[in-house]
Amino acid sequence: MSKSVFDEAIAIFGDPNCRENTISPAYQNMVGPFGGITAATLLNAVLSHPEVEGSPVSMTVNYLGAIKSAVMTIVPRLIRSNRSNQHWLVEAQADNEAVLTATIVVAQRRDTWRHQEISHPGAPAVNELTSLPIENMTPWVQQYDMRFVKGSLFEEVDENSEALPSESMHWITDRSPRALDFLSLTAMSDSFFPRLFLIKRDFVPAGTVSYTVYFHVDQNQLTELQSPWALAHARASNFNGSYFDQTGELWSEDGQLLTTTTQMVYYKC
Amino acid sequence: MSKSVFDEAIAIFGDPNCRENTISPAYQNMVGPFGGITAATLLNAVLSHPEVEGSPVSMTVNYLGAIKSAVMTIVPRLIRSNRSNQHWLVEAQADNEAVLTATIVVAQRRDTWRHQEISHPGAPAVNELTSLPIENMTPWVQQYDMRFVKGSLFEEVDENSEALPSESMHWITDRSPRALDFLSLTAMSDSFFPRLFLIKRDFVPAGTVSYTVYFHVDQNQLTELQSPWALAHARASNFNGSYFDQTGELWSEDGQLLTTTTQMVYYKC
Repeated sequence: MSKSVFDEAIAIFGDPNCRENTISPAYQNMVGPFGGITAATLLNAVLSHPEVEGSPVSMTVNYLGAIKSAVMTIVPRLIRSNRSNQHWLVEAQADNEAVLTATIVVAQRRDTWRHQEISHPGAPAVNELTSLPIENMTPWVQQYDMRFVKGSLFEEVDENSEALPSESMHWITDRSPRALDFLSLTAMSDSFFPRLFLIKRDFVPAGTVSYTVYFHVDQNQLTELQSPWALAHARASNFNGSYFDQTGELWSEDGQLLTTTTQMVYYKC
Repeated sequence: MSKSVFDEAIAIFGDPNCRENTISPAYQNMVGPFGGITAATLLNAVLSHPEVEGSPVSMTVNYLGAIKSAVMTIVPRLIRSNRSNQHWLVEAQADNEAVLTATIVVAQRRDTWRHQEISHPGAPAVNELTSLPIENMTPWVQQYDMRFVKGSLFEEVDENSEALPSESMHWITDRSPRALDFLSLTAMSDSFFPRLFLIKRDFVPAGTVSYTVYFHVDQNQLTELQSPWALAHARASNFNGSYFDQTGELWSEDGQLLTTTTQMVYYKC
């Protein structure tokens, strides 16, 4: 079977301690590649490393500047192995300039006491919603089928809504079909349009500087998922002094919490 | 004027590119030092570096293992300087073993459009509340005056409360007086007892693996604060497969959002 567009974009080659990735035109954003795809590529460099043991628990990626070259090199470094987890540090360069850093914790997760504290936000079923039109969209958006429950950038603001101005909710799946895994969840957890666009209803200059994803499921729970769709829910806390944050969750179609995520975003307006 | 206990604990010496910190007995936790104090110490190594330009915007610290030695060495590395921000990577060792990594973004924040999206949670005034007794508490807790609004570990559960089981809110200030700054906010943003203790009402084994703080104020806004108290509000999302998260905010006494924070915590039960 040929690789999906996503798997082609995050493909890495060469020495496990110094990988190469060809920047995919399919996932370009306004300036350089979509942050979700580069984050997934860094995670791929760790998860495919011969020394990795376990599945990802947390990941923080810092975006140092737009990648304009055709290739990036990725250096994953195992900083410490403990009995049940590992700490990885990843640095990526493009055109001999640092472009990304990441810290990743992987762990052998045990079957422990379980408790979900936050509630599922509730949403209409995927097939009751229409897909976001992708004509004229930036390339990475075209790789996804997104179906908005609320807070679409491309619809009129509902004046009667009780939602926060920065709140959005959408179903998302890869158009080039593949099951959900840690790599695609890493990308999808960054699929929220900048909250500033939503509030301002305008494409003002903005770019993520730091992006964190926490994984709330292990490999077995992911493997058992029947649906390739995730429900993505996000909002902001505050906009001040050139930076704002956004916070979100991804849920499986059967209602499990998959990831929680937060990011800090530079803006100018 | 003599240094406060906090400033003594986070003090760093020697080469700006390879600092030494003497682990303070005053901020010990159950095993090794309080994560908030080591995070503040790493930030101190960056903010006191001769090449730093700007104030902190985001910080992620990974905890690789308990520090058992008397001294740690801290290597801050400026990975990239942009026009308005810098990306730093910090690695710390104790007894020649890696114990901490951190990524820190500092920036020259401009006066931009401002908007606070989340609401202040509301709380009684500091002087209407009683201090958490500190006798028999682990050392770091004794360095703070904490006054609980809700979710104290050391009070009966209020069966009529509408709060989430994992929710807590407390006022906090340094007992050895000092004004709030980025360093103390970094430590205070980790002053939430593990949410698992709160739900289980028991001290089960738990330890943070990754801790993120976003700063929502700049240096000028901090300098103008009249009060050394912060209101700390936290909750969890999910407990599953050896890891749970917790999410929180710190507010100034005059109602400004100071930090948002999240962490992923290992547990065994």
